[in-house]
Amino acid sequence: MPAPYLLFLGDCEIEEAAKTAFGLAQWRRDQCLGQLRFETCKIDTGLPDLSIQEASARGAKSLVIGVVNAGGFIPDEWITYFVDALDAGLDLVSGMHQSLASIPQLKEAADRNNRQLFDVRSNTRDFETGTGRKRSGKRVLTVGTDCAIGKKYSALSIEQALRKRGVKADFRATGQTGVMIAGRGIAIDAIISDFLAGAAEWLSPDNDPDHWDVIEGQGSLFHPAYAGVSVGLIHGSQPDALVLCHQPGRKEIISVDGFPLPSLPACIDLNDRIAKLTNPNVKTVGVCANTSKLSAQEAQDAIRRIEDEVKLPCCDPVREGADKIADYMLAHCS
Amino acid sequence: MPAPYLLFLGDCEIEEAAKTAFGLAQWRRDQCLGQLRFETCKIDTGLPDLSIQEASARGAKSLVIGVVNAGGFIPDEWITYFVDALDAGLDLVSGMHQSLASIPQLKEAADRNNRQLFDVRSNTRDFETGTGRKRSGKRVLTVGTDCAIGKKYSALSIEQALRKRGVKADFRATGQTGVMIAGRGIAIDAIISDFLAGAAEWLSPDNDPDHWDVIEGQGSLFHPAYAGVSVGLIHGSQPDALVLCHQPGRKEIISVDGFPLPSLPACIDLNDRIAKLTNPNVKTVGVCANTSKLSAQEAQDAIRRIEDEVKLPCCDPVREGADKIADYMLAHCS
Repeated sequence: MPAPYLLFLGDCEIEEAAKTAFGLAQWRRDQCLGQLRFETCKIDTGLPDLSIQEASARGAKSLVIGVVNAGGFIPDEWITYFVDALDAGLDLVSGMHQSLASIPQLKEAADRNNRQLFDVRSNTRDFETGTGRKRSGKRVLTVGTDCAIGKKYSALSIEQALRKRGVKADFRATGQTGVMIAGRGIAIDAIISDFLAGAAEWLSPDNDPDHWDVIEGQGSLFHPAYAGVSVGLIHGSQPDALVLCHQPGRKEIISVDGFPLPSLPACIDLNDRIAKLTNPNVKTVGVCANTSKLSAQEAQDAIRRIEDEVKLPCCDPVREGADKIADYMLAHCS
Repeated sequence: MPAPYLLFLGDCEIEEAAKTAFGLAQWRRDQCLGQLRFETCKIDTGLPDLSIQEASARGAKSLVIGVVNAGGFIPDEWITYFVDALDAGLDLVSGMHQSLASIPQLKEAADRNNRQLFDVRSNTRDFETGTGRKRSGKRVLTVGTDCAIGKKYSALSIEQALRKRGVKADFRATGQTGVMIAGRGIAIDAIISDFLAGAAEWLSPDNDPDHWDVIEGQGSLFHPAYAGVSVGLIHGSQPDALVLCHQPGRKEIISVDGFPLPSLPACIDLNDRIAKLTNPNVKTVGVCANTSKLSAQEAQDAIRRIEDEVKLPCCDPVREGADKIADYMLAHCS
């Protein structure tokens, strides 16, 4: 996907739905020129607001759809903007389930302007079913009390902390934003269910004994829509270490009604139990707290409370990095 | 799919891989004319061995692929037989992942003979993501210590037992064989992972308060390739009752190496725990024992031992029906 990007936010009203935009703005800021927002948009990545014409004049090469909605379908009201972008000479990048090329106006506009349509979520290769075979090398997987809670940022921070220590480590992307950031990976929730664990096995192949794959988790065992994806990813990843991601203060599972967040001990316990099937030595090595909505003092208090509760290191990977967790993990899983 | 059928067994060597053939021979025997086996085939459904020409002469309307292999791909050596069947005027029915029409020789032979290619595993409709919303009516789901262990037969027997008691009940098929037997349903393992639970929700919609959906389970929480499918199906089904399916004497999880079967109490416990997310009142109401490889006496002993171990009714649904379990379920889940 050619950089630099204009990030499309459209009419997005909730921050969690804009995780692709925030992920790129955070981890690939030098490649992001600006954001495109409707008047009703309630989200701000902090990038300059640009129209398609302004972005094009400043050299934007791609319009990246920075928001998702449940189901991954593209609303009709977005399409005229996308056609304008193609007409202005930009490529179009999407992490939605619905393929861009399946929308006749977009296909036509892309052809007319000789522009490309990138569907990051489409997996162009076939996968095998899982085998459960033990692979060489080490793996850490981020899991969560909920979806859209920080599993990708946590994995990227852990990769950073490991590399800082001279440990060989690779971030393994499993979602559309992660794939955009890493430039490779699998949008695992777009895989045919039968091949879920097999695709996860493929994602972190045999490696050097002291190499760590840092695998981006998906979903949550406590989300009634997505727990199946989480389980397939856990089993296929056969992690040596799990890092639990949590947002202090979040009370309810997102995008559904009436599902309370699990307690941290219950969540650690169930993830450990599921993961033991393919790696009996797995252990949870820390909690990544997403304190983006708290003051510095509140964040510190929340982190201390979590450490008291679960007796494991806790940190906010965005505020302070994941050093504490990396140290604990290397000490306990080598 | 036009009956009667010739069941294709090919070079199948293990009984578990021929579950489609056995399912149709058991539950739709009046529609099965015979079986087609290579010399190396080690499986027998008990139906007459017929060549394609013989079956055609006796009025066969479809060749049904009665075997599966891991991954669901169609081996090259089968294709000449399928072309012969199309040339002999039969339609072709498949439950494999790979679509028949994607194989040029088959597409061409079907067109040439004006025959149909049925891909039971292809889902032609779109599903939504799961919501976890509580639906009216009652649901029982079969789960298993392993794959290919009797979850479909158990569900069909429970439906039969409920109807015999005057209870409104519908078998809900979730696998290719179940869909072939029921004439409707979803091959749930062919669903895109993100929509797993949503598809399961769609499969057993709101119903009368005293109506039971009897849902065919898939996979096993203890199978390293397929547990994700099991979890999505459990959550989307929001079952009031679970029936655990088990084969006494089976020691290892099939199609992978080095995974022992779980104990019955461990399996019941984990299934209950997963299922409680979308139905806190769920309970396991019995064990269906697949004693097909045991003598009558051995079967009786195995069933008694299971009842002693788990303190729940146990029966072999094929030998004796599922009356015991239906009675217990109606007494404890109404």
